[in-house]
Order: sequence, then structure tokens, then C-alpha cells
Amino acid sequence: MELKEKIIKQASEAKGASKKLAHLGSEVKNQALLAMADALEERVEEILQANEQDMEYGRENGLSESLLDRLLLTEARVSKMAQGLREVAQFSDPIGEVLEMKKRPNGLKIGKVQVPLGVIGIIYEARPNVTVDAAGLCLKAGNTVVLRGSSSAINSNKAIVNVISRAAYDAGLPEGSIQLLESTERKAVQVMFELNDYLDVLIPRGGAGLIQAVVNNSTVPVIETGVGNCHTFIDSQADLDKAEQIVINAKTQRTGVCNAMETLLVHEDVAEEFLPAIIEELRERDTLVKGDKKVREIVSDVKEATTEDWATEFLDYILAIKIVSSLDQALEHIDEYSTSHSEAIVTENYTKAHKFLDLVDSAAVYVNASTRFTDGGQFGLGAEIGISTQKLHARGPMGVNQLTTTKFIIFGDGQIRQ
Amino acid sequence: MELKEKIIKQASEAKGASKKLAHLGSEVKNQALLAMADALEERVEEILQANEQDMEYGRENGLSESLLDRLLLTEARVSKMAQGLREVAQFSDPIGEVLEMKKRPNGLKIGKVQVPLGVIGIIYEARPNVTVDAAGLCLKAGNTVVLRGSSSAINSNKAIVNVISRAAYDAGLPEGSIQLLESTERKAVQVMFELNDYLDVLIPRGGAGLIQAVVNNSTVPVIETGVGNCHTFIDSQADLDKAEQIVINAKTQRTGVCNAMETLLVHEDVAEEFLPAIIEELRERDTLVKGDKKVREIVSDVKEATTEDWATEFLDYILAIKIVSSLDQALEHIDEYSTSHSEAIVTENYTKAHKFLDLVDSAAVYVNASTRFTDGGQFGLGAEIGISTQKLHARGPMGVNQLTTTKFIIFGDGQIRQ
Repeated sequence: MELKEKIIKQASEAKGASKKLAHLGSEVKNQALLAMADALEERVEEILQANEQDMEYGRENGLSESLLDRLLLTEARVSKMAQGLREVAQFSDPIGEVLEMKKRPNGLKIGKVQVPLGVIGIIYEARPNVTVDAAGLCLKAGNTVVLRGSSSAINSNKAIVNVISRAAYDAGLPEGSIQLLESTERKAVQVMFELNDYLDVLIPRGGAGLIQAVVNNSTVPVIETGVGNCHTFIDSQADLDKAEQIVINAKTQRTGVCNAMETLLVHEDVAEEFLPAIIEELRERDTLVKGDKKVREIVSDVKEATTEDWATEFLDYILAIKIVSSLDQALEHIDEYSTSHSEAIVTENYTKAHKFLDLVDSAAVYVNASTRFTDGGQFGLGAEIGISTQKLHARGPMGVNQLTTTKFIIFGDGQIRQ
Repeated sequence: MELKEKIIKQASEAKGASKKLAHLGSEVKNQALLAMADALEERVEEILQANEQDMEYGRENGLSESLLDRLLLTEARVSKMAQGLREVAQFSDPIGEVLEMKKRPNGLKIGKVQVPLGVIGIIYEARPNVTVDAAGLCLKAGNTVVLRGSSSAINSNKAIVNVISRAAYDAGLPEGSIQLLESTERKAVQVMFELNDYLDVLIPRGGAGLIQAVVNNSTVPVIETGVGNCHTFIDSQADLDKAEQIVINAKTQRTGVCNAMETLLVHEDVAEEFLPAIIEELRERDTLVKGDKKVREIVSDVKEATTEDWATEFLDYILAIKIVSSLDQALEHIDEYSTSHSEAIVTENYTKAHKFLDLVDSAAVYVNASTRFTDGGQFGLGAEIGISTQKLHARGPMGVNQLTTTKFIIFGDGQIRQ
């Protein structure tokens, strides 16, 4: 069968399944999630064997150590995926909730009920755990999924989907609820971009290049996720002990993630006091520090930060530092370079804290805390499908609730419009 | 200046203005809306003169009577636009509302606050009142607008924007909050499709062709509006008096609108009783009736309905009628042909009513009422910017609340992630 036909067939099966899944009760969905979790643990050997094929192929093709580590599955990692599904089963079911209902003067009762989106397409890179996490969250919210993982993880993903879709079906979910595109051709992604008749939304999870390609080429509505050029501003009235802890945490607790800090802005009044020690501490943690002219006047061996650095999501042990003369200048810099993911101010000044909260136009805006908290789990949403950096539909961490839409239901008694 | 540069300059001004407008208080915004309303009435002569130019040009170019009527402005119509702005000024301001705030175990207070989308692009056809309605709703929600009307109304739109943007500025809104693209070239629309750096959303208002072109070509996120192939199903247990009233209202009260009924589905058990009289009544109201084979066995001079008819939004005095043997068959037909706008069932049977509400996947699903109610005003949302037929962000009539997004605000006390 031709590639395009094959993908349309899968998408069409997902669409057919979504119409049944939308009306299944919570109990069946939760039983299926638990069965999927059990099946992952019971059939872990198959999954690890398939993963070993991917790892071998990756090594032969010179994948970096960090990519290989992201690709690697172990019994513990598979158990963690299973555990994730069990947690999702515990979440309350958003579907069917009537969010509001009002009686109009003409007697019509008009309400808004939460319903599934339908079919969710997900395009993602390397990590095979996304296969399980994404499928679990989508199913919980009554949606079916069409998954397209990276070619480097194709064997792992096939084995995983084989295991979980069998378990889901046996537990009562409609056949075809979890679809994995098996072709590793780039063309498969192009086909997904045009599946408007089958997909209700397309969510890319991965690097900036992947996300940009999806945004630019998909006619299916997209939720943009992830790119985080995050800033922390240390105000002149900051508690410098808090500032130190927050800076170290936001930059070094984990670097390859979208909510890690990439640029530090420091008010000139505290720069001389704050910078030498923090730069030393960052260097002790293997972080390369780049700075503007003023930073290098204080710590002379700091490398020069270029305009490109201000615009870069390093996702690495690299930090760009700029000294600013005011909160307004910090806000201007953020406005120019931020990707509107997460920004923080460290200050004890009440008015400046609120000004920062009001004026920064990002998905998550912090006072006196590390940007690393921007995460579905940390925000109390349970697991997340990604972090939206766009303004439509969902903004910030997206949990089960963000995988739904609403419809109006209207109870009449023969009303007609005048 | 080159077309593209000029449009980017306007979009960039709108973006700059949006950053100021987002933080203006309700009072300034409401004063501006009232000032815009007054200015429309005070300077009505200028507007009518400009409109006369468009009308003349339209007549010369052979615009149909109905298009000319949509284009025509009168003192009364301008006053109605002004009245619309005064009503929007009365709405409560959605901006700044904290929708939820929770304290996490680590002490972080995490809240969600309602904020403007930013800059809203609107591409619309013929009717110049959209210029005022759209600008008013967008400004109320703290957004600036980039408007692109049809070339047939260019003089009217220019005059209107000239009047309202001057009044808005004098009342304290940022300069450049209301932008009208003055080029009537098709290329201008193409440029809008790529303004991702400036526009947060693009809303097309018009016919199916316009909407499809925007969806297919825009990289700016789109909210699809409007196309309504709406169905009404008369169940075997319908109250046929209610059914009659609802059918006549949904088809003939106004035909050129998206929430008018286009296909009537009738249960075979009541077809012989119901159809002859209703078809006569429809014909008395100049409605052309088309029917499937079974309909034509009951009323022999009914024209044959083709597959294409089932899929057509007539927007005219035309109705396609099909006889079905069960609720399930009605649901299947709707599932196949509906554009997911508005559908209604007429029945006295409780279980069938709820089954229809549950299973029809449309923006608005009715029991025993006319689909003509799908409208922001009728639903109690105040005015509307359009009716979304997509599932992302907004579904059904979109009022001021749907022109907003949220951001997370986080109050910390030095928290770092473990």
C-alpha cells in the first residue's frame, strides 16, 4: 500500500475509534490504563529487546551519548512508564462535566459540557516514554492518538504500542485507539500535516526545528510546545541568598529542559556584590558563563555574550548574563528575546514584583522561585502532554483538561427565534 | 513603500500598541468605546459619503442586490453600530480576573490570570459593520486589531476606521490600536498569513471559500468560523406542532446565515403525517424543497436531492429533506455531512433527546428548539466575533471571553526544584 494511503487508513481508524471512545465511561478507560501498565511490566523483555536494536543502530550511526541515554530503556524505566499510566488512571475524568448552565429569558437552558477533542496527532523525538505518556493522557481524556516518533526509536515504539494497544483493546477500548506510524520516511510527517479530516490537533514535542517545521507546514491546528529561552532577573532589592539558590537551581539542576534558565539579568546596584560569587559557583558546576561588557568589567575572564547568545536556548551548561540599570530595562530585554515560556524576578519589593507579574507576557511568570517549576506535575495538573508557548487553547503546562473541548447543549421546549 | 513592508509596519504598530493596551484599566477602555460610538454618529455624513462611493462602484461592477444591500450604510445602520459599541462598553471586563489560585505543598501559590491574546487579525467580507463590531470586541478584551475587509467596502471601511481610531486615541487608547489594511490586492492577505511575529490569531469571517483559504495557507494560528450545514431531526415521538414551528423558523426566519437549517431529517413513522403540510408551508414561503426517493413518494412533485445537496450550505430558500428509519440513521447522516455547527432533535422522548445531545459532535446541539439561536447575543455572551466550528480554543459563539488567554502567575519565597 502506498505510504499516504496507509497513513490515511490509520488516521481514519483512529477517527472511527474516537467516536466510540468519546462515550465510554471512566471505569472502562481507567481499567484500560491499568491493563496497559500491567502489560508493559509483564512484557518488558520484548520491549527491551526491541530497544536494544535501536541502541545498536544508534551506536553504529554515531548518536551522541546524551541521545543514546534518552533512547535507552531499562526495566526500571519501563516500570516508571507503567507507574505513570497508573497515576493517570487516578486522575478525575474531565469528560462530561457540565461547566456551566444558564436559563435564558425565553426559557432555553443553555449549558457547556466538556468533551474530548477527538483525534490527537503527536510528533515527537527520541524518548520512547513519550509514546506511553502521550497515549495515556489522550485516552484518559477520551481521545484517540496518532503517534509519530523518531526513526531512531522506531523498534522500541513499535514494541511499546504493540503491547499497550493490545492491552487497551482487551480491556474494552475501541480497536485502533492507539496508532503508530511505522514509516520512518520524512514524507510521513508531511502527510500528517494535511490530515484535517481526521486529526483535530497536532502537537509537536521536540526541538525548535521540529516545532517550527510543524507550525509552518501543518494545516491541521497546532499547539506549539516547548521552546524556552527563560530569564531570571535579580532586582536591586533582591534577597541575594534566595537569588543565589534560584540561579543555581534554574541553570544547573537540569540543563536539557525547556524550563531551565538561559539568560540571567542582574540589576547594576547588586552586580558587584552578586556576580563574582555566583559566577564562581556556576563554574564549579561546569557552567560556561558569557557576559556583556559590564559583566566582564566585574569578572574579567568571562567570555563575551553576543546578540545571538541572548536569543539562544542553550539547553546546556551555558549561561548568558547581562547587567541592566532598571526593572524596565530587564522587561525590555525579556520582551525582545523571550520565547514566552517562563521568566522570574527575584525581589523583596512588592511593587516591582507585581509590575513584573503584570508586564511579562509569558506562559509562567514567577516571583522568587526557580523557573524549573513550569511542569504539569509541579503545577498539580498531574502528568502533562507538553508545555504550550502559544496563546490559543492552552498556555503553559497542558494536562488532561487541556486535551478536551466543549460543546453547547441546549434544552428547549419549542422555542423559535423572533 | 512596498506592500509587504507597509503591512508589516502596520502589524508592528498594532503589536506595540497591544503591549500598552493590555495594561489599561476598564474605565479607559470603556470611555474609548463610548467615544467611538459618539464619533460614528457625529461624523455619519463622512461615512455615508464614502459608502456611496462603494455603492456606486458596486453597481457599476454588477454586484447582486443582496450584496449591495449588505454593503449599504444608512444613518440608522451607523447608529446601530454605535449602539453595539455602547453595549460592549457595558460588558464586564474579562482581563485581570484570577480564574484559580492554589497553594502547592512546597508553599508556591500558583494562579491563572486572564490576559488579552495580543493582536487579532480579522479577514472579512462585504458588511462594513464588522469593522466596528470586531474592533469593539477586540479592544474590550485588551487586544489590538489588524483588519482586512473586502475591496468592495474599502471606502466605507477607511472612513469608519478613520473616525473610530481617532476617537479611540483621543480617549486614551494607544496610537495604532486599530489598523486597517488599505490595499485591496489579494497579496495583502498572503502577507497576513505569515505575520506570526505580530499576530496572535487570525479569524476569517465570510464564506466557505475564504475560510478554507485562510485555514490552508496561514501559519498564524486560525480560528475557523461559520460554515454551517445545520440539521434538524424530527423524531417519531416528536410533538409535530413544535416540529412545524421549529422547521419553519430554522429554515425561513433568515436564510443567509450560518445557523439556518439546510437539511431536515424526518423519521419514517411520522413522515406521511408531517411532510405534506410542512412542504406546502415551506413553499408558501418561497422555499424550494428537495427530497430523497421516500420523500418524493409522499409528495410527488418534490425535486430530487443529490448527494451534493446533503453536503451543501444553501444559505438560501432551499431545503433538502431525507426520511430516516431511526435515530441512529439520523445520527449517521449528521456525522457524515454536518459541518459541526448546530443540529437539533425534535422529540418528546427523554432517552432519545439525551442520546442525541451526547452523540452529536457539533458546537451547539439542541433539543426542541430552532438552530437559529446559535449566536452570541442569544446565548447571553453579549456580542460575538464569530461562531467557531473548530475544537481548539473556542467552540460555538465567541464573545469577549474567547478573545483572551491565560498566564500562570507564581508567588514564591525562594523555592527551588528538588
